[in-house]
Amino acid sequence: MNDLVIRPATPHDVPAIVALLAADPLGVGRESPDDLAPYYAAFERMAADPHQHPTVAVRDGRVVGTLQLSVIHGLSRRGATRTIIEAVRIHSDERGNGLGSRLITWAVEESRSLGADLVQLTSDASRVDAHRFYERLGFTGSHIGFKLQL
Amino acid sequence: MNDLVIRPATPHDVPAIVALLAADPLGVGRESPDDLAPYYAAFERMAADPHQHPTVAVRDGRVVGTLQLSVIHGLSRRGATRTIIEAVRIHSDERGNGLGSRLITWAVEESRSLGADLVQLTSDASRVDAHRFYERLGFTGSHIGFKLQL
Repeated sequence: MNDLVIRPATPHDVPAIVALLAADPLGVGRESPDDLAPYYAAFERMAADPHQHPTVAVRDGRVVGTLQLSVIHGLSRRGATRTIIEAVRIHSDERGNGLGSRLITWAVEESRSLGADLVQLTSDASRVDAHRFYERLGFTGSHIGFKLQL
Repeated sequence: MNDLVIRPATPHDVPAIVALLAADPLGVGRESPDDLAPYYAAFERMAADPHQHPTVAVRDGRVVGTLQLSVIHGLSRRGATRTIIEAVRIHSDERGNGLGSRLITWAVEESRSLGADLVQLTSDASRVDAHRFYERLGFTGSHIGFKLQL
């Protein structure tokens, strides 16, 4: 595992990130890996925002994991800054080898460097293994996450 | 209810917003309304970020509600843009009169104008009335929200 690099994503990583998003059981129906145009456009919007940190984990030149870290300044909790982790995906070849844990631990350390007081994320209620994973890493599943599709 | 105005918060609203945050049962232990300096500093950080929309509801010149709307561009869901609603508070004098519903409906419409495909929020698992409220407004409580204090 010495050859693993966690680094900011670039536009060149977009196809590999989309492949990871689409390989997910919940993602398969909502991604379009054969039409990358909307993803490149979205990557440009993210790149223009200094508070968005699209990230990849690369092993032997191959993208094997991804997540997005977002910084949100706010007033509550004495003006606390929080980060939000979204779109965490690990390549199926890499499951169970600790990569997920390394990637989330990286995101927590990066959040600390970015001045965050709190890290948060939501996980679909059906992903029971993921919940145990986040609890082992010190997260508390104290909230219900609500979504409204527009 | 005709005199209600929902508008962007300004630094002048900070004391009233903090009073609302501190009046909340979960907020009372984690806010410091007698020391506003960290809140003014946080408001400056938010004002410097075009994707943060601290918002107040004002009736007869008095702040009676608040929320923060944040825009997050991302790759997942075909490059979807999502908004996150945080720090929703309604003055105790105004509960049960539909103000909460107006404020969230405003946030959903504003999210649409900002180009969002998805609106999301988390609510502490203990706030059972709030969960019913969000479900009535069309939200689905499909996720578990995890937090890690740094």
